[in-house]
Amino acid sequence: MDLKEKILSTEDNLFNGRIFKVKVHDIILPDGKPSKREIVEHHGGVGVIAVTPEREVFMVKQYRIAADEIMLEIPAGKLEQGEDPYAAGMRELEEETGYCTDKLEFLGEYYATPGYCTEKLSIYLATNLKYKGQHLDPGEFLSISKIPLYTLYEMVMNNEIRDCKTAIAILKAKAIIG
Amino acid sequence: MDLKEKILSTEDNLFNGRIFKVKVHDIILPDGKPSKREIVEHHGGVGVIAVTPEREVFMVKQYRIAADEIMLEIPAGKLEQGEDPYAAGMRELEEETGYCTDKLEFLGEYYATPGYCTEKLSIYLATNLKYKGQHLDPGEFLSISKIPLYTLYEMVMNNEIRDCKTAIAILKAKAIIG
Repeated sequence: MDLKEKILSTEDNLFNGRIFKVKVHDIILPDGKPSKREIVEHHGGVGVIAVTPEREVFMVKQYRIAADEIMLEIPAGKLEQGEDPYAAGMRELEEETGYCTDKLEFLGEYYATPGYCTEKLSIYLATNLKYKGQHLDPGEFLSISKIPLYTLYEMVMNNEIRDCKTAIAILKAKAIIG
Repeated sequence: MDLKEKILSTEDNLFNGRIFKVKVHDIILPDGKPSKREIVEHHGGVGVIAVTPEREVFMVKQYRIAADEIMLEIPAGKLEQGEDPYAAGMRELEEETGYCTDKLEFLGEYYATPGYCTEKLSIYLATNLKYKGQHLDPGEFLSISKIPLYTLYEMVMNNEIRDCKTAIAILKAKAIIG
């Protein structure tokens, strides 16, 4: 069976925000029946797990209003429309941690919630870190700490990490770096 | 510094869909400046990684219109408002794979995209599977296959798995089951 759904028409800009937009497709299901699909349009994001030679990881504590909690995450940010995720990863790493690197290792591109949201999130591993100085975006308030990679791995295994990209980055970095 | 943002007022129902709603908060940032936060409200989801005694995993291939691709994912579904994620995990496992179990192991509760979306996703590990018969929701079209856990682990490490919850579930199941 062809699993693909066919789009008949689209209502655009049902919400038109700074971070995301909303549209609704009228579609035909694989069995020929009509249905609707609600879509959040987002330009995508990037996250960077930055590991020091001592196997410590730069982690960000940040209030997340959608979760209504202070969350522990890897440095991350959203892409501007059409922005290259690799360049954005370099930028976010330096802005949030104050460190830069000469090369990021690609850890994959993920859909956060592919049922209804176009956001793709690229994850990178940064090593060979050099200090340059933190410079946050206006309106960005976060605290940075260094936590041993093994401690973070244990936190993922104990279900204490609550952000998807952060859990993936820690598990993959642990598998690669050991 | 107190990282929390204070909500002054909220515009609700800027989009009011079947899958999600949109609201915008007017907030005060930690430095006292005003800003806005756009929020996608979603009831949350559940995903289940079901592993056979032969260390094979039930995987779902499904067209995802937001990604415009056929994606390989663990069985998953969205919660009804207030629905218990554990019960929903039991239901989705049986509906999508035709197998049930007597106990799910909790692998964590994750925010897919905590910057702007309230969706929390609970992930469970199912073993001790017993066949009962697949019964999909109307409008749900997917194909089920069994793939060795080790093959899936290699796919995650090679950046070939593109769904967040699926990558986390595979990496954690591999760490637990071996």
